[in-house]
Amino acid sequence: MEQWLKNDERMDYLLAEDLRIIQSPSVFSFSLDAVLLARFVQIPKSRGHIIDLCSGNGVIPLFLSARTKAKITGVELQPKLHDMATRSIAYNELSHQIDMQLGDVKDTPQTLGIEKYDVVTCNPPYFLAHELSEKNTSEHYAIARHEIHLTLDEAVEAASRLLKQGGKAAFVHRPGRLLDIVTAMRANRLEPKRIQFVYPKQGKEANTLLIEAIKDGKPDLKILPPLYVYKDDNEYTAEVRALLYGEGN
Amino acid sequence: MEQWLKNDERMDYLLAEDLRIIQSPSVFSFSLDAVLLARFVQIPKSRGHIIDLCSGNGVIPLFLSARTKAKITGVELQPKLHDMATRSIAYNELSHQIDMQLGDVKDTPQTLGIEKYDVVTCNPPYFLAHELSEKNTSEHYAIARHEIHLTLDEAVEAASRLLKQGGKAAFVHRPGRLLDIVTAMRANRLEPKRIQFVYPKQGKEANTLLIEAIKDGKPDLKILPPLYVYKDDNEYTAEVRALLYGEGN
Repeated sequence: MEQWLKNDERMDYLLAEDLRIIQSPSVFSFSLDAVLLARFVQIPKSRGHIIDLCSGNGVIPLFLSARTKAKITGVELQPKLHDMATRSIAYNELSHQIDMQLGDVKDTPQTLGIEKYDVVTCNPPYFLAHELSEKNTSEHYAIARHEIHLTLDEAVEAASRLLKQGGKAAFVHRPGRLLDIVTAMRANRLEPKRIQFVYPKQGKEANTLLIEAIKDGKPDLKILPPLYVYKDDNEYTAEVRALLYGEGN
Repeated sequence: MEQWLKNDERMDYLLAEDLRIIQSPSVFSFSLDAVLLARFVQIPKSRGHIIDLCSGNGVIPLFLSARTKAKITGVELQPKLHDMATRSIAYNELSHQIDMQLGDVKDTPQTLGIEKYDVVTCNPPYFLAHELSEKNTSEHYAIARHEIHLTLDEAVEAASRLLKQGGKAAFVHRPGRLLDIVTAMRANRLEPKRIQFVYPKQGKEANTLLIEAIKDGKPDLKILPPLYVYKDDNEYTAEVRALLYGEGN
């Protein structure tokens, strides 16, 4: 396995999907939020073309590949992360289904095709550029987590342009940005249809927002049942355990 | 007690607050949503002036009177409901604290005062005028439930004009109108700060939305823990029982 890895990288399990993924503590590790988004989004089972923006090390395309035979394109700006994703896809023998593109999300409608995709997923940088702490020394983490190269508005606009009419755009973000994301979506022909809030545990405020919109859809928003991550004893809930480790665990 | 009642009216208990309220099955009965809003809104305990729009039979002012010594004004368009509210307030000997005004919410900034109130509450008509079924024969119910005389935008605009800078506006509505209400709020200097979704029971979609905004507030939205109305056995949850019947029941 070592021939697949560079520097401080390690090969982690995506246990629920019987897949492996290359991670590096100094560059980027995928978060639970990406896994939640990959489970939340509604995708075609066999046909169509899905595009994942801000792919990082490819966790969302890898997870989605277990749910669909549709073609999946991932887009990542950072060469190191793009390279990790490409090697993970090759290791899992999924290169026929998943194609990783190195590039800027803002350019994707021009470079990858306008109104060509059935589904767009995106786990964008969550934090505003000015929230960047000087202590946060890793440039890789800073770019992945802060709106340095891509704002939320830009991500939503790119998603809309990539999507066919009737296609779905699914984002994960912080609840504090709910109003910004729905405003951006409506300004870009994306009508929010499904929202799910994720709560760290019962009695706490939500800390994650999952939202799916349909391009040129009719207004009809559903608020799905809440998802709790931890039980009162700080163990994962059964729902999250199943997502991460598979149904039987 | 009968001298307080007309026609088919009855005197119901607001048990949790040790109050009574006049209701009529042919005109209007208050809903759980009003009780939830009266509990959700953050109000000053002793001073200030609260205004409740679309007051119906006065359930929200009555509930709020148990939480605060602040002056409360209720506004209702329909004379029959205004009359029921006024008699309920007199029966509960709260006329010194609660003042019911008969009138159109749209006129209230002019008639009752611009930027004069600390808190606005509103349980507005939920349904669009065109959703009105011909089967729905009661004009009183139709006006209370459909946007015949007051749209959501008009209610939000009136709320904003009534409020002092820094004052709070709290609404209850259907989750399907979330995007409309936050758009209307932001267009009227009301920044949403707290949202709570109410679910009929675990595993179901939300059916009620509680939202509180601050006039000229800074963006910082919190999604509160979900509230469930019924347990799996279709009994009220402990939280809702406490609201309706008092803590010990």
